[in-house]
Amino acid sequence: MSEYPISKRNKVKRSHLRGSYDHAAVHAILDAYPLCHVGYLVDGQPYVTPTFHWREGNRLYWHGSSASRMLRTVKQGTPVCLTVTLFDGFVMARSPFHHSANYRTAMCFGNASPLPYEAMEPALKIMMEQYFPGRWDSLRENYEQELKSTTVVSMEIEQASAKVRTGPPVDDEEDYDNVPAWAGVLPMATMVGTPIADPRLKDGTPVPDYLTDYKIG
Amino acid sequence: MSEYPISKRNKVKRSHLRGSYDHAAVHAILDAYPLCHVGYLVDGQPYVTPTFHWREGNRLYWHGSSASRMLRTVKQGTPVCLTVTLFDGFVMARSPFHHSANYRTAMCFGNASPLPYEAMEPALKIMMEQYFPGRWDSLRENYEQELKSTTVVSMEIEQASAKVRTGPPVDDEEDYDNVPAWAGVLPMATMVGTPIADPRLKDGTPVPDYLTDYKIG
Repeated sequence: MSEYPISKRNKVKRSHLRGSYDHAAVHAILDAYPLCHVGYLVDGQPYVTPTFHWREGNRLYWHGSSASRMLRTVKQGTPVCLTVTLFDGFVMARSPFHHSANYRTAMCFGNASPLPYEAMEPALKIMMEQYFPGRWDSLRENYEQELKSTTVVSMEIEQASAKVRTGPPVDDEEDYDNVPAWAGVLPMATMVGTPIADPRLKDGTPVPDYLTDYKIG
Repeated sequence: MSEYPISKRNKVKRSHLRGSYDHAAVHAILDAYPLCHVGYLVDGQPYVTPTFHWREGNRLYWHGSSASRMLRTVKQGTPVCLTVTLFDGFVMARSPFHHSANYRTAMCFGNASPLPYEAMEPALKIMMEQYFPGRWDSLRENYEQELKSTTVVSMEIEQASAKVRTGPPVDDEEDYDNVPAWAGVLPMATMVGTPIADPRLKDGTPVPDYLTDYKIG
């Protein structure tokens, strides 16, 4: 089982038994949800910006407008922390202290760099095909000025950690008998809704297969 | 309408028409989802750690184990960015470039400080009552050593921005006619599941009212 190197930077300090450094554990969380939060630094101030990511092997990608503060910063190679979190439920215990959450989170460290112009479109196609297989070829092609106003960055994951909690509350032994409060888990999940057609969509345009039973989370 | 002061730090740079500095707009997003991502800095490395937050007026609170890297760092008063994001759907346009997301995100800047011991329990009770009204009094009381191993921090929101996108894709005019691809929104929402009783819950313990039709998002 291949693992990310462990150092002070990525060591899970709290509830370390829930932590893992396995590539597979980290990648599974990254692949489960497209939304990440990118942490970066501007003039001593940390920022946390949400965006979509995608992954190829041990490399993460994300993109956006070249005018984005986040992209203008991270493309310079400054240190980045990219975190993906799935909130799976409230864990409701018999004491305030043992309340918790069920969750899956992956924290990835590295330094990003911008893709050269000619590598951008292939990367964006991979993103689209990972999200919506078969969609790319149905779209209008990119204009050069669109690509030129876009930044795509990639980041080799140097270090990472995954942290996962599942299951019921863990209470103090005596509280199971003595406390009458309801205890258990209130589950949360991402629900994918029914596709809403653009009001200007031409009548009769079929809903593509990749949107039927779309899976996320 | 009261607004957060705008400076380089919190100015919405990209798609600024989607941005707002209104207290009400920021607070609405903070209150819609309990999960936030806290950005902070350790030895020049940004970190992004997920946790739960709660709010009173213009002040944010969060808590956890005193052993947490995040809490040990932010309680020193280092600069913090706390971001809450709700991902509301994929926006699927007729060109790759106009694909987007529907989302609500609030980015809050400030400096946190730890609550003194005697203020912790009242704050934790407020958290619980905001999340699950009426639950606190049904629980076993906190032990002193539990509170002593917990850190609660609060942060006045000095500056903030909200950014929201809603609605269908916005395509280039000629693409509406010329591109046959399906276009529209694939909605996403947080689904609250049916409460799962702890396997050790005593038979006949009723599911409390605050878990029935629990609203989130």
